[in-house]
Amino acid sequence: MKYDDPKKVRAMIRKDLWRKPTAGIAPGYAQANLVILPQRYAFDFLLFCQRNPKPCPLLEVLEPGRFTTNFLASGADIGTDLPLYNVYEKGKLKRTVAGIKDLWQEDFVTFLIGCSFSFEEALIRAGIPVRHIEEGKNVPMYVTNIPCYDAGIFTGTMVVTMRPMPAGRIVPAVRITSRYSSVHGGPVHIGDPAKIGIRNIRRPDFGEAVTIKKDETLLFWACGVTPQVAVMNAKPNICITHAPGHMFVSDVLNEELANQ
Amino acid sequence: MKYDDPKKVRAMIRKDLWRKPTAGIAPGYAQANLVILPQRYAFDFLLFCQRNPKPCPLLEVLEPGRFTTNFLASGADIGTDLPLYNVYEKGKLKRTVAGIKDLWQEDFVTFLIGCSFSFEEALIRAGIPVRHIEEGKNVPMYVTNIPCYDAGIFTGTMVVTMRPMPAGRIVPAVRITSRYSSVHGGPVHIGDPAKIGIRNIRRPDFGEAVTIKKDETLLFWACGVTPQVAVMNAKPNICITHAPGHMFVSDVLNEELANQ
Repeated sequence: MKYDDPKKVRAMIRKDLWRKPTAGIAPGYAQANLVILPQRYAFDFLLFCQRNPKPCPLLEVLEPGRFTTNFLASGADIGTDLPLYNVYEKGKLKRTVAGIKDLWQEDFVTFLIGCSFSFEEALIRAGIPVRHIEEGKNVPMYVTNIPCYDAGIFTGTMVVTMRPMPAGRIVPAVRITSRYSSVHGGPVHIGDPAKIGIRNIRRPDFGEAVTIKKDETLLFWACGVTPQVAVMNAKPNICITHAPGHMFVSDVLNEELANQ
Repeated sequence: MKYDDPKKVRAMIRKDLWRKPTAGIAPGYAQANLVILPQRYAFDFLLFCQRNPKPCPLLEVLEPGRFTTNFLASGADIGTDLPLYNVYEKGKLKRTVAGIKDLWQEDFVTFLIGCSFSFEEALIRAGIPVRHIEEGKNVPMYVTNIPCYDAGIFTGTMVVTMRPMPAGRIVPAVRITSRYSSVHGGPVHIGDPAKIGIRNIRRPDFGEAVTIKKDETLLFWACGVTPQVAVMNAKPNICITHAPGHMFVSDVLNEELANQ
């Protein structure tokens, strides 16, 4: 089995032969965060993403009831083609499942949102190591006090990912990630975590802590978990997301998402 | 009266002291296209813009019923602060009015969409003349056969603006306008108009024809009239737009809209 063809990866996932995180599979291809909401919340959520493009860069939105993609992949099935899904009811996680065909509602609207995997590949290609990848961990994520713009029922503060860098790599890391504005773009903060309301850098709110070396500076990027937190705050009667790290693997190359 | 402060310009328009086109007033500040639709069409229209960001770059969307802006200007009134409005019923222009307070409905959703005035200023600043400005005309606009991505009831092909350039200015014009991806970005076509379904370059579908000199190449950019054509195709019972050239003048600098 080869893990470098996104169509084959999705076919394998569809047959429930892969329930693991998707980091590192189908290298070069963009992966996406998933949020599914009933139609009555869809305008507000689309507006939340429009107003907060750094944490919520929309890559594809499907019409109400549709579960096959058009843009990110030809005919992928949202109900089966992610390894694991989280099902939330009124803002609480109720279960984690390998498929959602039995839960599907005619009024479900699917949102696929960019993921920082895309720019991490560009950093590594430019010789800039990414600590959590070096350490084989999930990226550390923190809830900040940076306000998002509200949209209807959706409110919240920004969630960020953190990558420590030595001084000489800050400028190239800013420059490279800024090219990827449709997958979070450049950092939202550089330096003191307290300035954005992070109390303890050793205790991320999601993901895992990574080693921070002496003299390293902390760089923070907007994170695709932000819209999930906004959804939790809004407590819709049902919401389905990907399970963390278990992303939608698309047919679009990361390079296609770089600024033109 | 000074015409360089957008707040003063809007105050003057609000008092109905300015019913002329807004090109050239408040230089440096972004101007925006306006589309107002009842809420039942709003998700589809927002999705149409999300899927077609080159012709429909959203700068601000207001919640249903709201008529004051937050992002493009602090507290501008959409009902009074544009010089002239077009009122469409079932896809047909019914009247052109100086204010829409008496037409306002509680379910109206306001969309403000980027305008190529922003990048024209950057072209001129870089020593690249823009023909229709040199000739004191409205930019020539053409309906093409370039398909837009459908979204619900909204369908159509792309409308483009055309600016002729001598050979040596094509590359800088591409480079400069590509920096402004939130106001149409780089060209969608360069060269033969027939390739994008334009039959007669001397007869634009909107705006005015401009002089095309021997050996000049034609550059085509996505145009903010595209969503208006999609609205006309969809024939909603009511839709209000700005009258062509009579834009919303914002407090946001064009430079703030350039890619970071």
